[in-house]
Amino acid sequence: MLRTHTCGELRITDVNKEIILSGWVQKTRELGGMTFVDLRDRYGITQVVFNQDWDKTLFDQARALGREFVVQITGTVIERESKNKNNPTGEIEIKVSKLNILNESITPPFTIEDETDGGDELRMKYRYLDLRRNAVRKNLELRHRLAIESRNFLDKLNFLEVETPVLIKSTPEGARDFVVPSRMNQNQFYALPQSPQTFKQLLMVSGFDRYYQIVKCFRDEDLRADRQPEFTQIDCEMSFVDQEDILQTFEGLVKHLFKTVKNIDIPVIPRMSYADAMKYYGNDKPDTRFDMQLCELNQLVKGHNFKVFDDAELVVAICAKGAANYTRKQLDELTEWVKRPQIGATGLVYARHNEDGSIKSSVDKFYNEEELKKWSAACNSQAGDLILVLAGNEEKTRKAMSELRLEMGNRLGLRDKNKFSCLWVIDFPLLEWNEGDPNLLASLAGRWHAKHHPFTSPKPEDIELLNVNPGAVRANAYDIVINGVEVGGGSMRIHNKNLQAKMFEVLGFTKEEALHQFGFLMNAFEFGAPPHGGIAFGFDRLCSLFGGADSIRDFIAFPKNNSGRDVMIDAPSEISEEQLKELAIRTVK
Amino acid sequence: MLRTHTCGELRITDVNKEIILSGWVQKTRELGGMTFVDLRDRYGITQVVFNQDWDKTLFDQARALGREFVVQITGTVIERESKNKNNPTGEIEIKVSKLNILNESITPPFTIEDETDGGDELRMKYRYLDLRRNAVRKNLELRHRLAIESRNFLDKLNFLEVETPVLIKSTPEGARDFVVPSRMNQNQFYALPQSPQTFKQLLMVSGFDRYYQIVKCFRDEDLRADRQPEFTQIDCEMSFVDQEDILQTFEGLVKHLFKTVKNIDIPVIPRMSYADAMKYYGNDKPDTRFDMQLCELNQLVKGHNFKVFDDAELVVAICAKGAANYTRKQLDELTEWVKRPQIGATGLVYARHNEDGSIKSSVDKFYNEEELKKWSAACNSQAGDLILVLAGNEEKTRKAMSELRLEMGNRLGLRDKNKFSCLWVIDFPLLEWNEGDPNLLASLAGRWHAKHHPFTSPKPEDIELLNVNPGAVRANAYDIVINGVEVGGGSMRIHNKNLQAKMFEVLGFTKEEALHQFGFLMNAFEFGAPPHGGIAFGFDRLCSLFGGADSIRDFIAFPKNNSGRDVMIDAPSEISEEQLKELAIRTVK
Repeated sequence: MLRTHTCGELRITDVNKEIILSGWVQKTRELGGMTFVDLRDRYGITQVVFNQDWDKTLFDQARALGREFVVQITGTVIERESKNKNNPTGEIEIKVSKLNILNESITPPFTIEDETDGGDELRMKYRYLDLRRNAVRKNLELRHRLAIESRNFLDKLNFLEVETPVLIKSTPEGARDFVVPSRMNQNQFYALPQSPQTFKQLLMVSGFDRYYQIVKCFRDEDLRADRQPEFTQIDCEMSFVDQEDILQTFEGLVKHLFKTVKNIDIPVIPRMSYADAMKYYGNDKPDTRFDMQLCELNQLVKGHNFKVFDDAELVVAICAKGAANYTRKQLDELTEWVKRPQIGATGLVYARHNEDGSIKSSVDKFYNEEELKKWSAACNSQAGDLILVLAGNEEKTRKAMSELRLEMGNRLGLRDKNKFSCLWVIDFPLLEWNEGDPNLLASLAGRWHAKHHPFTSPKPEDIELLNVNPGAVRANAYDIVINGVEVGGGSMRIHNKNLQAKMFEVLGFTKEEALHQFGFLMNAFEFGAPPHGGIAFGFDRLCSLFGGADSIRDFIAFPKNNSGRDVMIDAPSEISEEQLKELAIRTVK
Repeated sequence: MLRTHTCGELRITDVNKEIILSGWVQKTRELGGMTFVDLRDRYGITQVVFNQDWDKTLFDQARALGREFVVQITGTVIERESKNKNNPTGEIEIKVSKLNILNESITPPFTIEDETDGGDELRMKYRYLDLRRNAVRKNLELRHRLAIESRNFLDKLNFLEVETPVLIKSTPEGARDFVVPSRMNQNQFYALPQSPQTFKQLLMVSGFDRYYQIVKCFRDEDLRADRQPEFTQIDCEMSFVDQEDILQTFEGLVKHLFKTVKNIDIPVIPRMSYADAMKYYGNDKPDTRFDMQLCELNQLVKGHNFKVFDDAELVVAICAKGAANYTRKQLDELTEWVKRPQIGATGLVYARHNEDGSIKSSVDKFYNEEELKKWSAACNSQAGDLILVLAGNEEKTRKAMSELRLEMGNRLGLRDKNKFSCLWVIDFPLLEWNEGDPNLLASLAGRWHAKHHPFTSPKPEDIELLNVNPGAVRANAYDIVINGVEVGGGSMRIHNKNLQAKMFEVLGFTKEEALHQFGFLMNAFEFGAPPHGGIAFGFDRLCSLFGGADSIRDFIAFPKNNSGRDVMIDAPSEISEEQLKELAIRTVK
């Protein structure tokens, strides 16, 4: 037996017990003829003691222990003289009678502490050492907990976890597929799934009624920060439901996870239309931890000879509570901030609503105080607030104001990572016009593109618009947004074969293309498809949100870098000529 | 709301309730002015009734319903006149007040019944319809149950489920890898994992202590019957344990699954050495539902001028209980059976231990009754038993006898699918000599090959033999066998860098090859690897075993055929020139 207890287990009630512990040497300290070793495992740290008066040989062995040595000690639990209240095992220590070095360690390239001295690259290369750090391991414990609580919640509601295949068929819709050459069917390729979408719909046709899967998906995208080529979804689908049933069910899941994993009670999750989200937040995933809504000033500001506003499609303001005391320097810096290319505004107008009730703006030349009071009324500013105004092209300005709002939220401390605000965004447009996207195949540019995916159902009352004004058709589609992060999204699906064919037509598929790519789904719809819909949660993102972190990388055991490389195992890598030959492919230099 | 209840839910206590059901039309029957419809969903079948006296229009609508139409009915629960005790809803039926056809169906290509008229190929093409059949769906429900019970059992024991990457590095050890060309790292390839072996060992180095994952693995093998290119494992690893700890833990898992899923109490699982399994069953995965052990007769049969036995390396017998009454015709047929190329015996000798106590053999010319009594004593035959003897080359004969034993087990009804006999096989040899295997790359033939995998620890007392007699080295490796099926296997791992290097040397890796392929693991072992070991269960196989089936295919939602094709979605398939160009690969015709 290598241990009787873990390093996080022993308490004052265990005093006098003979025990065996195994773990890593976190650190050693010498003090007046004694050596104290912090012995660490996943469960905690226990202090073990060697005293030269008890056993000189043991004491000398202990002095030679290096950081990260793996040792097994046998000894007696004794009460500590100076207790450590911050450590659950801090009331006891172990008087060692036997020391067994299970494995030695060379000096690690960075310290295995919560605050490490290792840079990003070094920690990725030695990921197995980075994972020893409490902070990183706790993230993966959280991930495990979220997964098992999700499964148990869904299991209780009669959802069946069904594994869908990983080696499927390439469908050039959406992002690029990773492909896998087939040796047994030469010159043919499997694709790795971007999602199990068609399979879960087939399971509904099969009468599975309620399906879920926590599943790896794959997307060969040019990686932006914090995207991974392989990622995990909680993928769900239900039959004989309407949108309301789905929202209720998965609102239940979100509440269950917050309650069981973080002991937080989430109130009823409010709902907002896509149109309102864009209008009031400039964004289809608003951070509702704070208010600071967008307020359109077009009606008030035109016709005062201020060319910037007169020429603008949109003039929009936010009211930053309590920020009237921003200095000129701060405002100049904020102006520079909105002018950065990532934000793209041409300038920033502000109006201070001073403590004395007066209002002073950066455009006093054009707007007198009476006019400014109208601005104040429109965006409901109080004495002490700061009104910030952007103007220009409708879409860009709204987007820039959304960014500015989030930035002001940060600066005013309104985006507490330990506070959670959930929101359903509903009534998304069915389609969006695609001008061409570097992540999409070139052949997909310049046409209507499914905003969610091609199986999303339009709202029945909007179906007629498909022919005359496709952009105005709303979908039975919904996203769940937490703290401004789109954590999940889904839709009611088309279950009628003719409507699905119509949808493919609008998306610019020829009948042959649609049949070639999705024939099996359209065939399946001939045999009695039930009304159905579903949702998929981005599990990596959900984990990072629960962990209060911005990056998903630390919630993935072995992530890849921005070039899609695993620098620890050095993948991808070249393969042998023999392998290429067997697969009947050749690389092109 | 599309339904208030499912089709499996209503009981006599619900009589008079107004309800809504949705489901598929299983079948319709007309009887004296009434139409009875069996409405089916995942949860059951409920009978709904239309009466022309109640509502002629409704009645006419109902008559027009076809098989597999999807309908929603509103109505009242009433007590049935002729109750069906075989159906949980059989005491009630629904008096329909409203019928809503949600979707129509063309006639399915085969009947959606437990016993279907559809052939294998047709059912695979229309897998989504095959999955509607109770029998198939129940298999996948069983699979879900086994997965969630496994997870909850392991979670309670502090195992963490950690997702390991799917896009990894190709290592030409063992079977062929599926590979994935990298677009961002041109001319380089990822590989899909054959198992997460190295990652779980790295997690142990990281101090994760207890890991599991229910995970897809991939192997590009020439598919034999009942192999799939993608398959699922319950993959587990533990630190600071010895072999005994692992056997105890996973014996617990097996017992838990039998108890919770099948309500069967499994007694303590016996253990047998590999050597004994080969000796007594001719097989390293003996079916211990029945005895009929192999009995070597070499000592008794030599020197009686029977050339077949005199020349044989091995003469081995089994005693088939109660089979002395086998006719000459049956014995001739059995002789033909063992001579088939798959079995490969050259002939079959038998001795009937008659009810009167006399013994008559097919080789009476060479062995008198006194000699035959010695055979009887050796294999413990009783009056009424049949002794069957094979002779020849040691290895082939043992294998043939193992097959004959299983066949006799079948013929004598000793292999009941509802009876379960579990066994640990332990003390496997560490290495086996590889002559060349069509599933291995040619470069791997003609050398020592790891029987389990290259990270398996030899028994400490056998390490010395690595240099002088590698074939005699036993491993700390174990398999769990249920009803003659290897359901799982694992080993204690090497955690010492030097021993691992030695192992690679014995396996014929140059130092450079070992470093190139497994450098990251060997590096990791420099930093304090704990003693560790693990096991992996073949989850598809486990499911089929629990389901009492021989094939794994019906326990996989969307399986591939023996050419690795998914005939439903028609994958693999050709991909576009554009895709190939982006990946910088070309196919070779």
